[in-house]
Amino acid sequence: MKIKLLLSLLLLFTTALANAQDSLAIRKIYDEALVNGKCYENLHYLCKNIGPRLSGSANAQKAVEWGKKLMESYGFDHVFLQEVMVPHWVRGEKEQAKIIDGTKEIAVPICALGMSVATPKEGITANVIEVHSLQELKTLGKDVIKGKIVFFNRPFDPRFIETGMAYGTAGDQRFLGPGEAAKYGAVGVIVRSLTEIIDDYPHTGATVYGDIKIPAAAISTKGANLLSSMLKMRKMPLIKFYFKQSCKQLPDALSYNVIAELKGSENPNKFITVGGHLDSWDLAEGANDDGTGVMQSLEVLRILKTLNYHPKNSIRAVFFMNEENGEKGGIKYAELAAKNKEEHIAAIETDEGGFTPRGFGFTGLSASALKKINKEWKPLLEPYEADRLIAGGGGSDIEPLVSAAPSVVIIGYLPDSQRYFDLHHTAKDVFENVNKRELELGSAAMASLVYLIDQHGF
Amino acid sequence: MKIKLLLSLLLLFTTALANAQDSLAIRKIYDEALVNGKCYENLHYLCKNIGPRLSGSANAQKAVEWGKKLMESYGFDHVFLQEVMVPHWVRGEKEQAKIIDGTKEIAVPICALGMSVATPKEGITANVIEVHSLQELKTLGKDVIKGKIVFFNRPFDPRFIETGMAYGTAGDQRFLGPGEAAKYGAVGVIVRSLTEIIDDYPHTGATVYGDIKIPAAAISTKGANLLSSMLKMRKMPLIKFYFKQSCKQLPDALSYNVIAELKGSENPNKFITVGGHLDSWDLAEGANDDGTGVMQSLEVLRILKTLNYHPKNSIRAVFFMNEENGEKGGIKYAELAAKNKEEHIAAIETDEGGFTPRGFGFTGLSASALKKINKEWKPLLEPYEADRLIAGGGGSDIEPLVSAAPSVVIIGYLPDSQRYFDLHHTAKDVFENVNKRELELGSAAMASLVYLIDQHGF
Repeated sequence: MKIKLLLSLLLLFTTALANAQDSLAIRKIYDEALVNGKCYENLHYLCKNIGPRLSGSANAQKAVEWGKKLMESYGFDHVFLQEVMVPHWVRGEKEQAKIIDGTKEIAVPICALGMSVATPKEGITANVIEVHSLQELKTLGKDVIKGKIVFFNRPFDPRFIETGMAYGTAGDQRFLGPGEAAKYGAVGVIVRSLTEIIDDYPHTGATVYGDIKIPAAAISTKGANLLSSMLKMRKMPLIKFYFKQSCKQLPDALSYNVIAELKGSENPNKFITVGGHLDSWDLAEGANDDGTGVMQSLEVLRILKTLNYHPKNSIRAVFFMNEENGEKGGIKYAELAAKNKEEHIAAIETDEGGFTPRGFGFTGLSASALKKINKEWKPLLEPYEADRLIAGGGGSDIEPLVSAAPSVVIIGYLPDSQRYFDLHHTAKDVFENVNKRELELGSAAMASLVYLIDQHGF
Repeated sequence: MKIKLLLSLLLLFTTALANAQDSLAIRKIYDEALVNGKCYENLHYLCKNIGPRLSGSANAQKAVEWGKKLMESYGFDHVFLQEVMVPHWVRGEKEQAKIIDGTKEIAVPICALGMSVATPKEGITANVIEVHSLQELKTLGKDVIKGKIVFFNRPFDPRFIETGMAYGTAGDQRFLGPGEAAKYGAVGVIVRSLTEIIDDYPHTGATVYGDIKIPAAAISTKGANLLSSMLKMRKMPLIKFYFKQSCKQLPDALSYNVIAELKGSENPNKFITVGGHLDSWDLAEGANDDGTGVMQSLEVLRILKTLNYHPKNSIRAVFFMNEENGEKGGIKYAELAAKNKEEHIAAIETDEGGFTPRGFGFTGLSASALKKINKEWKPLLEPYEADRLIAGGGGSDIEPLVSAAPSVVIIGYLPDSQRYFDLHHTAKDVFENVNKRELELGSAAMASLVYLIDQHGF
């Protein structure tokens, strides 16, 4: 009995000590991020000296080379590339669109959806049918849709607190709408931009066709509201829509994931990965999508190295290639992980913007393990207000890892979500819309979580 | 024993029912705020059709009249003004400043601190002494300081997670620095702008003199860094500073708090107040400071009325006058509360910007009551991510209430703090830097808290 008590006390003491050490380590991580942070200036370089970097583009290659050099400059244990073949889609000339009301024409802002085909050189002019769901296509049927431009106009639902949920539930219009409309004989598709904000910026993003490919573009929310109200005011045959785009698919190109590693001192073949995607849409600088993510991931490693932290497990920062229109980089990373028999403990993805951290979402963690980290880790993150540790979440670059390493815990970094879809995939996604402290707090939150996972596992 | 069990079950059932009702009520509040919200368009009007509205100005009077009319248009039970005399300070012509390095002159951005006196017409030119604290003045003494311009240059400490803490700890330089430096014979004071961001915008804000008044201005952080580095590079006598400002204090003016009320059905003389301040600095539109606060406060009442909620206690939205340079409105509100024997249960202040809600800080709540609301209310607010219910907090407009109603609970609304001091008291505090959803979520969070207090008390 006495020995049991002694052991209990010893355990209590050891726990308290570990807790104090963790608390101190996390404070040091935050101080380094907030006082000597490098991710904001690195992001500035990526946005201003490289800029848009869609897969297969010359800029994407520049970003790969610069990213590798930058990693090498920090003196990590290992910096390397993973070859990956990626789609190479180009937008071509600036798109044109107008609503035609008899002899009156009103120009509206559109942009081709990523992976869309071009219109004929002279553009497409056709009657428009407004729909609000894929189901509605079925209800209307071929007779009504054939020969028309289908206009998907279901808006974001503002009642979701997390805007990602609104994106998720409105997104099928962009992802699947063009492929589905084509089945019913549509000649083109116009999709309301996936955002709640009402403005003149069209939001691009990938679409996925079935067998038939028809030209597809996003229209700004102001343009969508105008088109919708004109369709309501006037009988349909009077209103036509014209659009022209010259985008095309070039042959697949060789590109790379860019990876930096701190070697694990105890378990070099066990990995904790933190990553974002290096490629970005072509309309702006890919600042919040996902320049912030790659620069934060690198910063996690830089912070740990600067603090002279020797991890038990190997820790990697990964700049994934081709998240936006193919996810080939994430798939390749998982493929090589399986081939090389790497044991992956956890992977964190940061691809929801560089906004103030709120916490993390976990997939592949048992309910009891989630409860445990909420008991033990949440109080450590609470002073930094990054302590929402919830079930669910991940990211498209790290999800393929699950098949390679079924026990891996997939973690989505959760920043504040309110501003992301104001900027997402538009010409507004520029460096000026990133806040330095918000960005830095995010890298510190992720470095803290990586530290806790490395120290304690799940 | 059986009856006890029955009573326990009944209590459990009643609690669960109350909980379900609360949960539903809060969901309705959020839906109304996010789907039919009016505070963003109201804020637009205040910023663009009225604009800067420093106490005593014609714009402040316009804001009072418009605010009252707006309240009346919503059909609340009672809308009224409270007379209050306020200081009337005017900036005068645009300030000028330069660093003089021998024959070289470099213009730097400054603005007079609120309530500062003017320089002589020809400006002030003097040697500069850089200091980092009020204590340093004492150490240097009169011999060193006399005849010089004191340059307070202690930067924000980036290690604070909440930026308000950095403001609090750097703020004495602006609040007290000029008055203190005057005691040692300084001829003028230049204060590093109270922000972490490095840019060209000077941040104004009130200073409080002692007996001797000397001209005092804020310099942009870029200007401060330049001045500091030039002082380090060159021997001091070579570097002089010139500045000119023509601000002045006019006679006190009559102004008003603007108040809307929903009458309590059970306790009409018990009050829950939610408020922000209507006055704003003169350099911009006072969008985040504190247009967002007044428009959110009004929105709280509008939401409750629209949902046909009949409060037990009287609920007030208060547009306080003169928070920025005198706090006369808050003092008057407390004075009249005492005079009219009003019983104040709680007062919420929203004056930290219209950013995403994180929660609330409570002063005047016992530890057990705080624990209780963390047990009962936190889970209700958690789905809305506005669930940090912490000790401490309030606001300068509601703090005077404590002397009038010692049992009042003083509550500070806590939005995300990262961007506030980028804009605070500068020409950048404009409507465009407010996000619609962030603003709306704040009004919903406050309406929810008002509802919970009204239903359950503390």
